[in-house]
Amino acid sequence: MNTTAEILAVGTELLLGDIVNTNAQFISRELAKLGINVYRHTVVGDNPARLKAAYARAFEKADVVIATGGLGPTGDDITKEIAAEYFGLPLVFHEESWNAIQARFAGMRAGVPSANRKQALIPEGCTVFPNANGTAPGACIESGDGKALLLLPGPPNEMEPMFLEYAVPFLCTKSSSVFVSRTLKTCGVGESRAEEILKDIIAAQSNPTVAPYAKMSEVWLRVTASAPDGQTARALIAPVAAAIYDRLGENIYGEDDDSLEGIVIKRLRENNLTLAPAESCTGGLLSAALVNVPGASEVFKEGLVTYSNEAKIKSLGVREATLSAHGAVSEQTAAEMAEGAARSAGASVGVSTTGIAGPGGGTPEKPVGLVYVGLYVKDRGVTVKELRLTGDRQRIRHRAVISALDFLRRELFILN
Amino acid sequence: MNTTAEILAVGTELLLGDIVNTNAQFISRELAKLGINVYRHTVVGDNPARLKAAYARAFEKADVVIATGGLGPTGDDITKEIAAEYFGLPLVFHEESWNAIQARFAGMRAGVPSANRKQALIPEGCTVFPNANGTAPGACIESGDGKALLLLPGPPNEMEPMFLEYAVPFLCTKSSSVFVSRTLKTCGVGESRAEEILKDIIAAQSNPTVAPYAKMSEVWLRVTASAPDGQTARALIAPVAAAIYDRLGENIYGEDDDSLEGIVIKRLRENNLTLAPAESCTGGLLSAALVNVPGASEVFKEGLVTYSNEAKIKSLGVREATLSAHGAVSEQTAAEMAEGAARSAGASVGVSTTGIAGPGGGTPEKPVGLVYVGLYVKDRGVTVKELRLTGDRQRIRHRAVISALDFLRRELFILN
Repeated sequence: MNTTAEILAVGTELLLGDIVNTNAQFISRELAKLGINVYRHTVVGDNPARLKAAYARAFEKADVVIATGGLGPTGDDITKEIAAEYFGLPLVFHEESWNAIQARFAGMRAGVPSANRKQALIPEGCTVFPNANGTAPGACIESGDGKALLLLPGPPNEMEPMFLEYAVPFLCTKSSSVFVSRTLKTCGVGESRAEEILKDIIAAQSNPTVAPYAKMSEVWLRVTASAPDGQTARALIAPVAAAIYDRLGENIYGEDDDSLEGIVIKRLRENNLTLAPAESCTGGLLSAALVNVPGASEVFKEGLVTYSNEAKIKSLGVREATLSAHGAVSEQTAAEMAEGAARSAGASVGVSTTGIAGPGGGTPEKPVGLVYVGLYVKDRGVTVKELRLTGDRQRIRHRAVISALDFLRRELFILN
Repeated sequence: MNTTAEILAVGTELLLGDIVNTNAQFISRELAKLGINVYRHTVVGDNPARLKAAYARAFEKADVVIATGGLGPTGDDITKEIAAEYFGLPLVFHEESWNAIQARFAGMRAGVPSANRKQALIPEGCTVFPNANGTAPGACIESGDGKALLLLPGPPNEMEPMFLEYAVPFLCTKSSSVFVSRTLKTCGVGESRAEEILKDIIAAQSNPTVAPYAKMSEVWLRVTASAPDGQTARALIAPVAAAIYDRLGENIYGEDDDSLEGIVIKRLRENNLTLAPAESCTGGLLSAALVNVPGASEVFKEGLVTYSNEAKIKSLGVREATLSAHGAVSEQTAAEMAEGAARSAGASVGVSTTGIAGPGGGTPEKPVGLVYVGLYVKDRGVTVKELRLTGDRQRIRHRAVISALDFLRRELFILN
């Protein structure tokens, strides 16, 4: 029997849409690794009656309830107080937590605000999780019947390290089987196309399961097995993953923590190539993605954001005649931008983007979403790819970056 | 009596932590504007029994349940099917939706995948919401007792426009009072400092309420009033907003849809200034933020991503002596980068970033999070700001972008 968990976020700011519940994602991902089955996410406001009802409802099904938020110093922060009430435990003063709170305010002239004293009160008998990054300690309340409530702070920079350091070791004692996942990441096939190709494989599996999902311009295939130990789980996954590789081939660019930009940088380095992007519609996002890869500096020569025609001419050597005959968003301009980027930066590979990200600027012949990606390779010449992307401005820009990276990957390392 | 809503997201990928539930945030924010009280967010997996139970539980309290996700073509997509079952409605074929689906696949050689046919089935008697950005139509099922279930697709680029175009007009008929918010956006004061400055204002208010919240390096103050009509609500907000302006002054850079980069571009344009960023640690993100502002091309001359020393020397004219004496992450290098960016691009203002985003590369004297922002203004010279930022690599990069923009805003348009 697997351990079942519910993740409960407490905070009116979530129900007002002021912030997004990234904590639920972080915790879900970590629980999946531990083989703990997440049954539900719930978000409730800072309301005592509703929070108490939420605890009760969560424990109807869940062995472990992980609550985030509402541990702050203000009157709105009631997660711990209602938890104590729910379990019938008094709140007691916790010396160590008080010392830690005082230490955080040491050196500030005003001293500890009186409101913070309430953060040193804890439900009697619980395990306290120290907070290395804030004033609110976390807590683990275990009931006699094997159920547990974990209270964690809301700010991700406090919650995440506390979860990893204190909650994970506790949760490990609760799980009898592990779940292992391998995520095969593809670019260049749509979700329904991928599902059609893999239909029989997806249908045939129950352990491991195969779950496809779309992420921007990518489709990821998550193969998940449960077993008493990691090795057995991995052995169950291997043949299914191999079958997916057989069908999707080079559409799969990597697995798990691989990123498209990471793969591109790795392949460039392996081939002793250097890269220079010149960006118009993507405005620097392509450079930012590439430079974010550790070790990018070895292959990333220089990036140029040439948004205006003037900059395209001056810095990339795009010809005025090309711009006036074909426009800035054209195959010809993309080609000259890519070549110009490589030459100007002294790189062996130049890549360019030029397109109409919208919302304005589209015409019947050149609609919003039309993007050209140019690729120049020294001693080989230029190739240009035309893209027709959908979505809002942000999305078109992001999709253009992903498409440019995938174009680089395929042109440089697969087709040739 | 206010209308009460629950937002229900359906998808095992959410419970596995593969994606984050941004839809709940978007819908919550929109409902707040309509004066609809969001009671709870729930996320359940692709499981028929649990989904049916979730509908039942949601309707215990909520007048309107808004479900997102699970309208796709695959067998896992069951939101509509279970909704029909829950309301006891048969699924019927909807000609118009089928035509729209066929139109989306027009021109593709393979035609409509057979799986997509299921997306044209709708619960009998419901109102269909056409999907301009995908194959899944949405739906609104109204029950006899005044309750309503809205079914919306999961991908945000499909859900958001559908929500605004079809769900909002429907929901307006359900609400008797409106909520109006004004969000005052600040940069350069911490959250607890802002709260302290505004303590009495925050405490004194119940309508409007004043809610501060931190967002990366910004603090936003949301002033929200409820009233029978928008004009009355806005009149309640005005004096409170004025009091906040009195206290926070130039720390407030804008309101509501204003962005820091938008304000910077606007002020540059008003002052006939042009801008050229040179980025090291931010890798293109500063250019990408600026270029994303409509009309940026008038003031944005050119951006340079000079990650390597070589590029800093070659393209920006940073002196080798400066780099070897002070290092790439130094006040001196930031200054020369900013000046070099302006000169090389022919812009009146140059801005630069150089820093250690981590996780590696830190030393005791130059720790991770140390970032210098350089600002060169023609005929005025160079100013450099030193930042000590916290967080992971992504966060440091983003915070550096925001700090650079705020530095530009203050130096160019407030202090001088």
